[in-house]
Amino acid sequence: MARLNDYNVSLVKVKGEFVWHTHDNTDDFFLVLDGHLTIQLRDRNIELGEGELFVVPRGIEHCPRADDEAHILLIEPAGTPNTGDVAGPRTAQSQWI
Amino acid sequence: MARLNDYNVSLVKVKGEFVWHTHDNTDDFFLVLDGHLTIQLRDRNIELGEGELFVVPRGIEHCPRADDEAHILLIEPAGTPNTGDVAGPRTAQSQWI
Repeated sequence: MARLNDYNVSLVKVKGEFVWHTHDNTDDFFLVLDGHLTIQLRDRNIELGEGELFVVPRGIEHCPRADDEAHILLIEPAGTPNTGDVAGPRTAQSQWI
Repeated sequence: MARLNDYNVSLVKVKGEFVWHTHDNTDDFFLVLDGHLTIQLRDRNIELGEGELFVVPRGIEHCPRADDEAHILLIEPAGTPNTGDVAGPRTAQSQWI
């Protein structure tokens, strides 16, 4: 959606539960534009409403979940796999819009 | 407000006109959380409403303006002066909240 130096700014629509994963080399930025997002960590849940953000520190296992469709802004270094260390069917290719 | 790798994520309240300035070494990310922001460029104005964002490419002169108070999320490499190449009375020291 936009580029900030060597970071990609992405807009994603999410619903349901993602997979537990970790990014070893980057923090992971989430900002809720619409709806509600739960970022599950192993020791607690982060609840984000509209206009709220959380940065998952690198190396911390997490699993985002949205019970209803939510619109999320992500900012990550270009080339960061969405599923972190866990390649699988949920690993996505990004697409410019 | 938050840190994303070596970037600072800042929340600023703005009202009025800033100064014309340029960042030679970084793009400049603006996301409107509340209100309306005009990013004046030399050849056009970018009008941003709530939930809208714009990235000013490095080297492009710009001057943000908000006729009414707006809440803006900024993302910049740590140490980026807010007034870019133009030091002056509007140059701010950031403060953690």
